[in-house]
Order: sequence, then structure tokens, then C-alpha cells
Amino acid sequence: MKFTIDALDAETSARATTFHTAHGSVETPVFMPVGTLGAVKTLSPDDLHKNQVQIILGNTYHLYLKPGLDIIKKSGGLHSFMGWSGPILTDSGGFQVYSLNDLKKITTEGVEFRSHWDGSTHFFSPEKVVEIQRIIGSDIMMVLDECISNPSDLETATAAHRLTLEWAFRSRQGFLESSALYHFDQFQFGIIQGGIYPDLRLESIQRLVDIGFDGYAIGGLAVGESQETRNSITQQCVKNLPQNQPIYLMGVGTPLDILEAIERGVDMFDCVMPTRNARNGTVFTQQGKVVIRNAQYKEDLNPLEYGCSCYTCQNFTRAYIRHLFNVNEVLGLRLATIHNVHFYMSLTYQARQAILAGCFQDFRQKFSQAYILDQDKNEK
Amino acid sequence: MKFTIDALDAETSARATTFHTAHGSVETPVFMPVGTLGAVKTLSPDDLHKNQVQIILGNTYHLYLKPGLDIIKKSGGLHSFMGWSGPILTDSGGFQVYSLNDLKKITTEGVEFRSHWDGSTHFFSPEKVVEIQRIIGSDIMMVLDECISNPSDLETATAAHRLTLEWAFRSRQGFLESSALYHFDQFQFGIIQGGIYPDLRLESIQRLVDIGFDGYAIGGLAVGESQETRNSITQQCVKNLPQNQPIYLMGVGTPLDILEAIERGVDMFDCVMPTRNARNGTVFTQQGKVVIRNAQYKEDLNPLEYGCSCYTCQNFTRAYIRHLFNVNEVLGLRLATIHNVHFYMSLTYQARQAILAGCFQDFRQKFSQAYILDQDKNEK
Repeated sequence: MKFTIDALDAETSARATTFHTAHGSVETPVFMPVGTLGAVKTLSPDDLHKNQVQIILGNTYHLYLKPGLDIIKKSGGLHSFMGWSGPILTDSGGFQVYSLNDLKKITTEGVEFRSHWDGSTHFFSPEKVVEIQRIIGSDIMMVLDECISNPSDLETATAAHRLTLEWAFRSRQGFLESSALYHFDQFQFGIIQGGIYPDLRLESIQRLVDIGFDGYAIGGLAVGESQETRNSITQQCVKNLPQNQPIYLMGVGTPLDILEAIERGVDMFDCVMPTRNARNGTVFTQQGKVVIRNAQYKEDLNPLEYGCSCYTCQNFTRAYIRHLFNVNEVLGLRLATIHNVHFYMSLTYQARQAILAGCFQDFRQKFSQAYILDQDKNEK
Repeated sequence: MKFTIDALDAETSARATTFHTAHGSVETPVFMPVGTLGAVKTLSPDDLHKNQVQIILGNTYHLYLKPGLDIIKKSGGLHSFMGWSGPILTDSGGFQVYSLNDLKKITTEGVEFRSHWDGSTHFFSPEKVVEIQRIIGSDIMMVLDECISNPSDLETATAAHRLTLEWAFRSRQGFLESSALYHFDQFQFGIIQGGIYPDLRLESIQRLVDIGFDGYAIGGLAVGESQETRNSITQQCVKNLPQNQPIYLMGVGTPLDILEAIERGVDMFDCVMPTRNARNGTVFTQQGKVVIRNAQYKEDLNPLEYGCSCYTCQNFTRAYIRHLFNVNEVLGLRLATIHNVHFYMSLTYQARQAILAGCFQDFRQKFSQAYILDQDKNEK
């Protein structure tokens, strides 16, 4: 994977990079909106382009079940199926299967699980997950890993870590022994596990780098640990990872979490927060969150965020969007989602511009001060 | 209201006209998508502009209850509240109140009804409905009328007809004695009632024309009568109405119904059919309707309608849209609505072009032959 470092921050580990895929280059730090089922919920590809979305995330588990691989293959892959011409990263399905508490059975071979739609039984092995992602045709595929919650005891974390490494090896084999189906190159990222245990994290990194992936993701965070632990593990991982490849922190996070991780050298992020919160009527602004259903906005003729250049803020008032939520007009879901996605894209774009200009710390501090911490800390 | 006749069809009563409002000119025949609660369901104003929507309809009853007049007034009227810069026509609320079977009480003075949201009691008089539409700031307001179902006996139809005429007189008085609130001219249309009784319809027209409105609507159709009766009443009304003012057939209808009425000289239409059907997953094509959830479309990589220039058909397959409906992604509702609204706009646009070119009958026959009658007849 072609990768360039565009700037390194002098005061922190923050960096601006660019990596290249067959569907376009991606400038980092970058946030990837989540398009679980072949759509970033409520948005069309046109909406994504207009909000400067560079790359989206698709969910292997969900797409495998619906619409299923036959249709995706017949369509020529997910890009073509959903009409999105930009890069796509797909997760491995591991996290979703891990979330199906009572419906899974993990063995060395792989994981057996039942569909949350109809209870039918399915089996994911590391090799099968590569094969599925060949059919989906994502630009970047993730390896199958075993996710554990935090905190987990050392024994549990060690077992999951060892299995994840064994699967990583088999995943890479599967990747190298197979070919892309749609005439463009795909890449594969490894996932670092090891819970909150630095020794396991370090071993995980060394083994994954020995195997050799196109990029590395920090997994197993944002699943119950403290912010301090998350920052500390993130920092340790970044310091020990190759500096000439993308680093992705999975499932993070709040605007302030993202800035903390950028400061520590992370390039890529994904989270359902901007899209899910939007559908609950909670919108992000530089002054903190706005719960648009609240009565205080009933006659508020300001935009969701003053000075925001998104379609929603340029055309509609808080009073109007509150009304749409109040009467269950689905346009409200889309307008709030457009704003929140724009907010996250703008956050990472501004972080990049600050890194390029050599003033990242200044930007981060100003952003964090304006953003109301009280509102933020309960948002996950 | 400035009104020009652009072309008269030689073989039928079809005509192409243009009328002018402060928010733009409208070329007829024209279909007005229904924006009940300050939004054409699932669409943004941008979507409407891109589909060549010229004028939309707002519902006085619904807007009066939610968001309520205070917010609309404070916003500077409905155009500003919902971010729509084109013309708006508002109904009088009569039809909605009439639909609230057990929640209304009609007297000579007006109609008392209970909100379907919270059961609170409200009262609409002809004068009050004008006042409400002054606050909404629609370009064209409709008078309060009493709607009856078809068939109704002569006695019921006569009583409703007489009350509607009395209210029409008071409505016009209220209109002439009040002023626009937002520095642009508003217009007012009268509504012809009289059920299926030609004598009542004729008397209704004569009395309304004596009062003098800016345009005339044919009400009380598409509420249970046969197609033959609807066509016959429509024809009779159009023949007796002034030819130098717009003629509006309320609540119609299917694509074929609209062509029948255009042939008889109607200029304006509204109906929830394209938008409501879209949300149920039923889309219109020139070859009839497509129920997109049907299993036959599971792997269908064609667009909803071959050759259609709408955003949906230019970018997505039937298989993809079926998938969105299948997994309850609200993007599916919007994509189907975009197509259906585009279909209706295209239908009336093509009818106009055919009238201008002197080949309306040819167009109507070709369209009707291709459009599958079997599918159409049960669609209402």
C-alpha cells in the first residue's frame, strides 16, 4: 500500500499521512462513517461526497447475512451494489459475532454463530472471512480476531490474544493465496489485541509485524476500559508499530477521544456515534452536544451550529429540525446525520490542517476548551 | 393572478398554461407533491428542486397543530420554516377534519374538532382558516369546505353544498379584509362541491364565480365515486368554469386518472399516491407498478425504471433498493420517493410538452397502452 507521511507534529506524535487505494487516496487523520448494511444510515453516496467523506466502513457480518454474498458478487462488489465510488474498509465480523453473547461458539478453527435475523447457523474461519471480503471487494479488509471485554483477567486476555495471532497468520495466508475478484488491489490490516496488558500488546505487535500486513489496527479498546487506560495502550501500540504504514484505532469515538488518539499518532477512526446519535436527535457542535428534541429549541431559529457549512445548517433552523423529530418525519434523521457526519469530517480535516501548519496542540486545546466536557463524558 | 394560456389542444380540452406567484411561475399541467407537515415525506427541498418540482402542497390542519402557528409566524412563514423557495398551496384543513369521523362537529359557524395528537379541542371557521393561511404564508390558499363521501344522497350533498357556498362567501370576505403578513401577494381558490349531482355542481360554480376567486378547485371527487362519474363531473365543471384562471382537481390521482383529467382541461393536481406508495415500496414505471419487496427483484440489477433520469435510477439497482427495504434502511424510502416524484413530474411535464407540440392524444394513448391497466386499477 502506497503510504506517505505528509507532516509530523513537533510537539506530539500526531501526523498527517496519505494512503492510496484503487478507489482514491485517503488523507489522514480520517474518520470513517459506518455503513453497516450497505448504506451509511439515512445518507446517499451523494450526501457522503458532499460532506467530504473519504472512506466508509462496511460490516462483513451484516452484509454476509443481508443481502448475502450472491447478490453482492453479482453486483460486482459492494462499491457497485451501493453506488459508492470511494474507498471502503470492511471489518471482519469478529466484533459483531462477539456481541452476540448467547449465539456464538468459538473454537481454534473459527467461530460458529447464529444469525440475529433468523437463527440460522453459520461459521466464520479466518480463511472464510478473507473469502467473504474478496466477494465484498473492500479496499481494506480486516482479519478475524477474538474480541474480549475490558477488563478481562490475564488468562482470558492471553487466550484470546493467542487465538487472534493464530488466526492472523491464517488470515494472511488466506489473503496471499487468493486474488481480488474485481480487477483492483485489496489490502489487509492486522488487529492488535491483548486487552489492557502491555506485554500482550507488545507481543501481538511483534508477531503481526512479522507476519506483515498492509496496516495495523488497535482492537479491543473502547469496550469498557477507562480513558486513561485507552490512551496509555494506544500510545504504547503506536510507538511500537511501523511508522510507514497506517494505524487505525477501531471503534473510537467521541470528538475528544479522537483528538487524544490523533495526538498519540493514530491515523484512522470509525464509530457509530455521529450517525446513531443523529438518529436519536443528538447533534454535535463545537460547543458540545445539542439534544434537539428539548423544549428549549422549540422556537430557536438558529442553525444546529452557527457557522457550520453543512447543508442542514445552511438551510434549516433548530426549530424546524426539532419539529421534524417531533412528528417523526424521516427527513429529520437525515438532516441531523448530515450535520453530525460533517462535524466529524470537519474535526479530522481541521486536525490534519493543524498538523500540516504545525499547530496541532493549539488546535486541540482550543477545540477541547470550547467543547463542553460535562456534555461529552457521558456520551458513549 | 397573472395567467396565460400557452396552448390549447385541438382534439381535446387539454391545455398548457402558466400562472405566476411571488415564489415563481408554474407551468401546467402540474402535479403538486404533498408536504403535509412542512416536508414532502423523506425529501429535502434540494431533492424537490432536482426533480423539477414546481409547487408543493401543505396541509393547514396538520401545520396548525404541529408545529403550530407561533413557530411558523416567528420563522417568517412556511417557506422560510421549511427552506422551500418555490410556490406553496395550502389546503383548508376541511378534508382532514372530515376524515376525523368521530372527532368533529359541524355547525353553520364552522367546525369543531379534536386534535388527533392529544384530543384537544379546536375550532375552524372560514375566516379563521384564512387567518391561519395568512400566517402560513402560502402562495395559494384554499377555502374551508364541507367534504362528503361519494355516494351521498341528494339531501346530504345539497346541505354540504349550501354550507360550502356560505363559507366560500365568508372566506372571500375574510381574505379581502385581511392582508399578507410577509410582503408578497397571496391568492385564494374556491372549491366546487355538490357530490355527484350536476345541478349542484353547476350552481356551485355559478355562485363561486359570482364571488370571484383567483382560481377554482374541483373538490369532493376521488372519495369513492366511479371513474366514469369522476370524469363526467370533471368535464362538466371544467366546461362551466372561467377559462382564464387555473383549474385544480383535488386529491387526484393515479397516472391514468391524471391524464384523463388533463384531457378534460384540468391544470393542477395533488395526491399522496407517489410519496405514500414509495414508502410502501411500490414504485411507478411507464410499464406499470413495481412492488420492490417482491422476491423476483432480489438479484435484479436493472434500475427501478429503465431510461429514467432520476438520481435513484441513475445510481442504484432494484436489488439494492429491495435490500434497503428488506433491512429497514430509511435511505430506501427516500430513493423510492425520489423516483416516484420524478415519475409524476415527468408525466405532467410530458403531457405539457405534448400539448405544446399538438400531439396530446397520441401521447396519452401511448402512455396508457404501455402502462399496465391491470396493475393500475386497484392502486387507490
